[in-house]
Amino acid sequence: MTTLTRPDTLSPAALEALQARFGEQLSTVPAVLDAHGRDESRQEFARPHAVLFAQGEADVVDALRLAREHGFPVVPFAVGSSLEGQVIPVAGGLSLDVSGMTAVLEVAAGGFQATVQPGLTYPELNRQLRHLGLFFPVDPGAEASLGGMASTNASGTAAVRYGTMRDNVLELRVALAGGEVIRVGSRARKTSAGYDLKNLFIGAEGTLGVITELTVRLWPLPAHLVVLRANFATLGEAARSAVDIMGAALQPERLELIDERQIHAVNVHKGTDFPEAPTLWIELASPSETALAEALELCRELVTDGGGTGLHAAHSAEERAKLWEARHHAYYAITALHPGHVNMTTDLCVPLHQLPEVVEFTRREADAAGLDASIVGHVGDGNFHVLFHAPPDDAETWERVNRVYDAMITETLSRGGTCTGEHGVGLHKRAYLAREHADTLTLMRGIKGLLDPQGLLNPGKILP
Amino acid sequence: MTTLTRPDTLSPAALEALQARFGEQLSTVPAVLDAHGRDESRQEFARPHAVLFAQGEADVVDALRLAREHGFPVVPFAVGSSLEGQVIPVAGGLSLDVSGMTAVLEVAAGGFQATVQPGLTYPELNRQLRHLGLFFPVDPGAEASLGGMASTNASGTAAVRYGTMRDNVLELRVALAGGEVIRVGSRARKTSAGYDLKNLFIGAEGTLGVITELTVRLWPLPAHLVVLRANFATLGEAARSAVDIMGAALQPERLELIDERQIHAVNVHKGTDFPEAPTLWIELASPSETALAEALELCRELVTDGGGTGLHAAHSAEERAKLWEARHHAYYAITALHPGHVNMTTDLCVPLHQLPEVVEFTRREADAAGLDASIVGHVGDGNFHVLFHAPPDDAETWERVNRVYDAMITETLSRGGTCTGEHGVGLHKRAYLAREHADTLTLMRGIKGLLDPQGLLNPGKILP
Repeated sequence: MTTLTRPDTLSPAALEALQARFGEQLSTVPAVLDAHGRDESRQEFARPHAVLFAQGEADVVDALRLAREHGFPVVPFAVGSSLEGQVIPVAGGLSLDVSGMTAVLEVAAGGFQATVQPGLTYPELNRQLRHLGLFFPVDPGAEASLGGMASTNASGTAAVRYGTMRDNVLELRVALAGGEVIRVGSRARKTSAGYDLKNLFIGAEGTLGVITELTVRLWPLPAHLVVLRANFATLGEAARSAVDIMGAALQPERLELIDERQIHAVNVHKGTDFPEAPTLWIELASPSETALAEALELCRELVTDGGGTGLHAAHSAEERAKLWEARHHAYYAITALHPGHVNMTTDLCVPLHQLPEVVEFTRREADAAGLDASIVGHVGDGNFHVLFHAPPDDAETWERVNRVYDAMITETLSRGGTCTGEHGVGLHKRAYLAREHADTLTLMRGIKGLLDPQGLLNPGKILP
Repeated sequence: MTTLTRPDTLSPAALEALQARFGEQLSTVPAVLDAHGRDESRQEFARPHAVLFAQGEADVVDALRLAREHGFPVVPFAVGSSLEGQVIPVAGGLSLDVSGMTAVLEVAAGGFQATVQPGLTYPELNRQLRHLGLFFPVDPGAEASLGGMASTNASGTAAVRYGTMRDNVLELRVALAGGEVIRVGSRARKTSAGYDLKNLFIGAEGTLGVITELTVRLWPLPAHLVVLRANFATLGEAARSAVDIMGAALQPERLELIDERQIHAVNVHKGTDFPEAPTLWIELASPSETALAEALELCRELVTDGGGTGLHAAHSAEERAKLWEARHHAYYAITALHPGHVNMTTDLCVPLHQLPEVVEFTRREADAAGLDASIVGHVGDGNFHVLFHAPPDDAETWERVNRVYDAMITETLSRGGTCTGEHGVGLHKRAYLAREHADTLTLMRGIKGLLDPQGLLNPGKILP
C-alpha cells in the first residue's frame, strides 16, 4: 500500500472551529485516522487530518460551512468498501463519516419505497423489510452503505433483473458545498420535471455534494426461486450460453459467470465442493411452481445446447443462500488464498453480444502475461470482473497487470463498452475515463466547477 | 390558439447565410412556417422565421454554428407531437426539423440494441424490428419520434414493465451550442464512468443540445400475452385494484385505467362497444401458456376481490391490438367528440399508494367546478391524465380548468408526486416546475448557462 504525501490542508484554526462545533463527534485519534485512510482496494493510504462522525444532516451542513470558511477538503465516508480509492482523502482534510446515520425514516410498502439515511447498509435495510415481503435488489459484494452505493452507481448480481442504483433511487437529499440542501428526483416512479439532477449526483462519488437522505425503490420478494448451476469446458462457452439465456426472454433474477479459479478459491475459503470449471449460476423466479418448473426446463435445454454439463438445480432457500453467499465472498476468497498480496479488480462492461470475445481476449492476454487472473461476471449485463493479485512491492508483476488491464480497456472501448460497469472511477480509472469520454471532460469539469467552485468535495477523484 | 408576438430574431444576414449553406433544405414558405408553429397542445402559435430540413448531423452542426454567429434561436422539431408547447418557436428563429433523419444505423440483436437517427418514430422502429423477435417498449400516444421522446423523457403504457426513455436509451450523440458533438452514456447496459450526462440531455427538451443519434435498448417480444378487462363502480375502486395488482408481483406489461367518459369517447370514435364504466385494462405476459393461465387466474381473483365486474380476457392478437389502438387514440377520441374545442391534458404522477386518493380528489374537484374532465392513467406507475376541453375563447371555463389543475398540483406535490410524469415542462408547466423544484432552479439555470451561454437553444422552455 502506497502512503501518499498529504498537503497540510486543515489549519489549526479550522481544527479548532471543528472541535468547537462538534466536540466528541470529531476525532484525531491516530487509529481512527488510519481507519479512514484506505478502502477495499488497499492500494493507497492517506490519513485525513480529522474524522467527523456525523449524526444527521445538520452536522453535514455545518461541516461543509466550516470547510468553505477554512478551505479544507471534505471526503464522505461510510463503510469504506469502495474499490477505486473513492474514500481515500488524498488531499487530507476532513473524513466525513456518515456510518452513524443509519435510520430508516419511512417505509411506504404500498408505494414500494423506503426513505433512509446514507449510512444504512443494504443488507440491514433488507433485514428490516423482510416481514413486508419486500426487498431492495441492489447487492454489491461488500456490505455497502446505500449512500456509498448511490455515489458509485453500484449494482451487483441482481442488476440484470432490477437495474442499478440509478434505477432504484427515486429521490435524494443532497448537501451542497455552497450550503444549500436540495431535493432531487421524485418519489413518483417517473418524472419529466426539468433537468435530471438525481442521476448527476448518483455516480458522482461525493465530488458534487454529500447525500444526506435517499428514497429507494422496493420490490416484491419473488414467490418461487431456483438456481441452476452448469459447468462448461471453456469461459467463452459459458459466456455464449449466458447470451443465449438473455435472448430467450427468461428474465433471470441473476446470471453469474464464475471461472474455475474463483470456484477453487471459494471451495477453499467456504469449504464448498463446487466442480472447479467455468460455471454459470442462473437464478430464475416465478409467481408459481408450475411456471418455475417450465422456465427451469427451458433454461436446462438452452444451457445443455450451449455445452453445459453437470447441471444442478438448487431449490431450497438454504442451498440458494449458501450459493449466493459464496458468490458474494468470491473477492474475499481470493484475498484469503494469497496472504500478503494486494488485489486489483476490474469491472469492464460491454454490449452483451461482445461479451464472449472480450472475456476470451482477457483470458488470452492474462495467460500470455503469465498472470494468475480469475474472472467472475454479472454476465447478463455484459459486466465482468478480473481479479489480479500480487505482493504490493512486486513492481514487475504489477507492470504486467497494468499492461493487460490497458489492453482490456482498449478492447472494451473499441467494442462500445465502458471502463467501469459498477465500481466507479475514483483514483484509479481517471486516465481510462479520459479515454472513454475525452469529448465530455470539459463539460464534466464545468459541472464540477458549478457545484464546487472551491474544489472542496472529495478532490482528486473522477476527473483526470 | 393564442398567436404569440414574436421578436425579430433572424436577421436578413442570418437568413442569407442559412440559404447560402442549405439552399433548398431551407424553407420560408408560409404553410411550412405555420406547420412548425404549433404542437399537439394547440394552445399557442408562433411562426419560426425559417425551417431547416436537416438531412444529417453535419446540417445540425452547421445550423448551430450559424446560430452562434448570428445569434438566432434554434428549436428542434420532428413530428410536433409534444403536449406542452415544447416545439413552438416562441422567440422565432430557426425550426430545426430532423424528421428527415430516420435511418436505422445499426441493429445489434444479440446486444439488444439499435442505433437510430432522431427523426425515426417508435412505431416505424418496431416495424423494422419485428422479424427479429425484438421490440422497443416506450409507446407514447402519438406516433412520436425517438429524438423527441428522449427530449421529454417520454413513456407510455408499457413503462410499468419496461421503464421510460431514461431506462431505454443507452447512448446519445448530441450537438452542442458551442459546436462540439459529444457522445454521452454507453452502449454497455450499465456504466459508472463519470458524471451522468446522458440523463441530463434526456428530458432537456432541446434546451441543452440537439440529439443527432440514439442507441436504444431492445427487448425480446413476450411469447404469450393476454389482456384482462374489468369494470368498477368507481374510479377509486379501479385505482385501488391497480395498487393491489402491483403488490402481487404479477409484473403486468401494461396496467391502464380508463374512466367511463374516455370509454364513451372511444366507443363513439372507434365504433367499439366497451362497457362505459371505470375500467382497468391489464396486460400480462409469460414465456408459456400454462404460466400465463396461472397469472391470469391470480389476476382475476385480485380484480374480483377489488370489486371488478364484467371480466373479459382478450387472447387473440387482433383483439389485443384493437384494444391498445383504442387506448392510444383516447386523446384523439375526445378531441373528435368536441369539435372546435381545445384540449388540455395533465400528466401528474404520484407514489403508487397515493394514487387512489389523488384520483378521487381530482374527480371531486372537477365535478365541483362543473367541468367535463375525463381521466385515463398508466396507473401501475402512479401516473394519470386528466383531459379538459373547452372552446378556445371560453375564458370563464378555462379559468375553472386552471383552478382545478392548480389544486391537483398542490395535492400531488403534497403527496410527494411530480407535476409531469411524461409530457415534460415546455411552456405550460414552468410555474409548476418552480413549485416542485424551487430549491434546484438555480442549479438548473447554471447548467443551462454552461451549455448554452447565448441562450440560443429552444429559449423560453422548462426554466421559469
